[in-house]
Amino acid sequence: MNHPVRVAILGATGAVGRKMIEVLEQRNFPLSELRLLASPRSAGQTLSYAGEKLQVEAVQEDSFEGVDIALFSAGANTSKQYAPLAVRSHAVVVDNSSAYRMQEDVPLVVPEVNPHALSRYKGIIANPNCSTIQLVVVLHALRSLGLEEVVISTYQAVSGMGQTAIDALHRELESGFAAKESTLFPMASAPFYVPMAFNVLPQCDVFLENGYTKEEMKLVQESRKILEQPTLRVAPTAVRVPVVYGHSESVRVTFARPVSVEEVRVLLAQAEGVSLADRPEEGIWPHPRMVEGSGQTFVGRIRSDLFDERSVQFFIVADNLLKGAAYNAVQIAEELVKNDWLGKEH
Amino acid sequence: MNHPVRVAILGATGAVGRKMIEVLEQRNFPLSELRLLASPRSAGQTLSYAGEKLQVEAVQEDSFEGVDIALFSAGANTSKQYAPLAVRSHAVVVDNSSAYRMQEDVPLVVPEVNPHALSRYKGIIANPNCSTIQLVVVLHALRSLGLEEVVISTYQAVSGMGQTAIDALHRELESGFAAKESTLFPMASAPFYVPMAFNVLPQCDVFLENGYTKEEMKLVQESRKILEQPTLRVAPTAVRVPVVYGHSESVRVTFARPVSVEEVRVLLAQAEGVSLADRPEEGIWPHPRMVEGSGQTFVGRIRSDLFDERSVQFFIVADNLLKGAAYNAVQIAEELVKNDWLGKEH
Repeated sequence: MNHPVRVAILGATGAVGRKMIEVLEQRNFPLSELRLLASPRSAGQTLSYAGEKLQVEAVQEDSFEGVDIALFSAGANTSKQYAPLAVRSHAVVVDNSSAYRMQEDVPLVVPEVNPHALSRYKGIIANPNCSTIQLVVVLHALRSLGLEEVVISTYQAVSGMGQTAIDALHRELESGFAAKESTLFPMASAPFYVPMAFNVLPQCDVFLENGYTKEEMKLVQESRKILEQPTLRVAPTAVRVPVVYGHSESVRVTFARPVSVEEVRVLLAQAEGVSLADRPEEGIWPHPRMVEGSGQTFVGRIRSDLFDERSVQFFIVADNLLKGAAYNAVQIAEELVKNDWLGKEH
Repeated sequence: MNHPVRVAILGATGAVGRKMIEVLEQRNFPLSELRLLASPRSAGQTLSYAGEKLQVEAVQEDSFEGVDIALFSAGANTSKQYAPLAVRSHAVVVDNSSAYRMQEDVPLVVPEVNPHALSRYKGIIANPNCSTIQLVVVLHALRSLGLEEVVISTYQAVSGMGQTAIDALHRELESGFAAKESTLFPMASAPFYVPMAFNVLPQCDVFLENGYTKEEMKLVQESRKILEQPTLRVAPTAVRVPVVYGHSESVRVTFARPVSVEEVRVLLAQAEGVSLADRPEEGIWPHPRMVEGSGQTFVGRIRSDLFDERSVQFFIVADNLLKGAAYNAVQIAEELVKNDWLGKEH
């Protein structure tokens, strides 16, 4: 089709929704219409796109009539309620929530990794979890070495919990070291709260029966689905840190054969979406404050395991609201447009 | 001997030195004299011990005359300069710096782990690195299961870099998110600086030729020495986070045989110096803000590896200035007194 596209953003006033608007603008997405949708509570607000003021509308059953692509970022429950309605209106839903990610007939896509999965979509395409996206961009680049095991510990920014968490961290910091706890961390629905300021919380999302959090199991299950490697072993620990933007990941990967730092570096240097930041002697390694605003995934601290010639360690950092959410969703929309995959029968 | 002991603290005005004074007081250490020593720059300050005001003296060649135990925490260079002089004055030096840790005839001691090593001391005893101490307290408790490999990622507090780093982080936070960088992080001697506020820095201490930092290699070498297991495989990543007090560690341990979470939990519950904080369903896991002021090492998030029955994952947190430094040093002093090991010929 390749004519300008009509886009709706559901959850437009949230931390990710606002970034979606920015990314569409920055990347000159071929828009013919941009419809901003949110809950009735947030409706009426005004947001800018390309110098134009747009009013946020309350989402309704018929909000997706005439929309080609609907970018959803309003939580799993809202997705479950409105995605079927959007699909019935012949919109393609790119859903940033976890609602549909593990559903077999829903492609879970990182455009640098598995764009081919998009061709099989049936109305809904899922955007992976933030911490998974930056991991698989790097793992994909190394798959020719034979991925066997990934041990990963994350350092996740509070913006992954939305704008309210950003505000809560700043409020805690304003009351200084004395501030004992906010009512938000480790998660809004937790039975007990702990301070996030000057702290490290080894809980992201709820606990499952196996002793892992939902966030940790997403790293396992989503990575396997995106990489199409259902037996990949992932040992995850997901941790929240008092950072606003940018998730970091300390990763050890074990390959099927001995590998050198040099071959890993060559593969990563050539990889789409990956930027090397790996000159420690010059003080260069990736950190959250350097990735703000970028859609790239940064990798550094690349080194051989001291005792296992099949293992390599490195440090991955990306902007969780961009590559981890809004940017990846817009990249998916771009792929759909480029390949003329919109408006297929489904 | 068991009579009251004459103690000197070198580096008394630093972050760790001040904690040493507090710990001696809190534990009713059997003192007959407390001599506070520092560089000429810090001399003249007044600090309190048990309600008494003590003046800090500038350290000199003869400062250790008549001292039984000298607690050193003034950096490796100062230790190298003054430890031989203190030993010549018949003081036992408990050195918190890295100067002597890997020297073969210097015991490197965590009292819960290898108190027997103290009996072989020849004037100098080394206090291990902060991140190593809390790790080996936990590993020691599990050694009956056969320790084979440890993959560890740290979340280290800025107080590990001393009082100037604590002040620098607070200054950065006061200037808010706009503050671009202090001149201190990742380390005072770095060629380039990065902000610590709202950031995560995958560099602690200087880089070595193998691509690892000195802090990372301490985790490997000191753990092997303390545990007396020279072939233990450790895969370390040391990371600084915007936390003031309390180091956290995300750890995966692989044992010689399949292990269950239950047997790990039983061993840790019985272990000296270890407190379990592991009831996720009640919101209980260890975090830095809960360990401030404690000499215990806290462990939680204990769970089996999802795919390897020989591996277990957990999260360790301890107060880096206490168990990681001052408290461990005073425990060593207590062991010496208790066993009548002071004033041996050496």
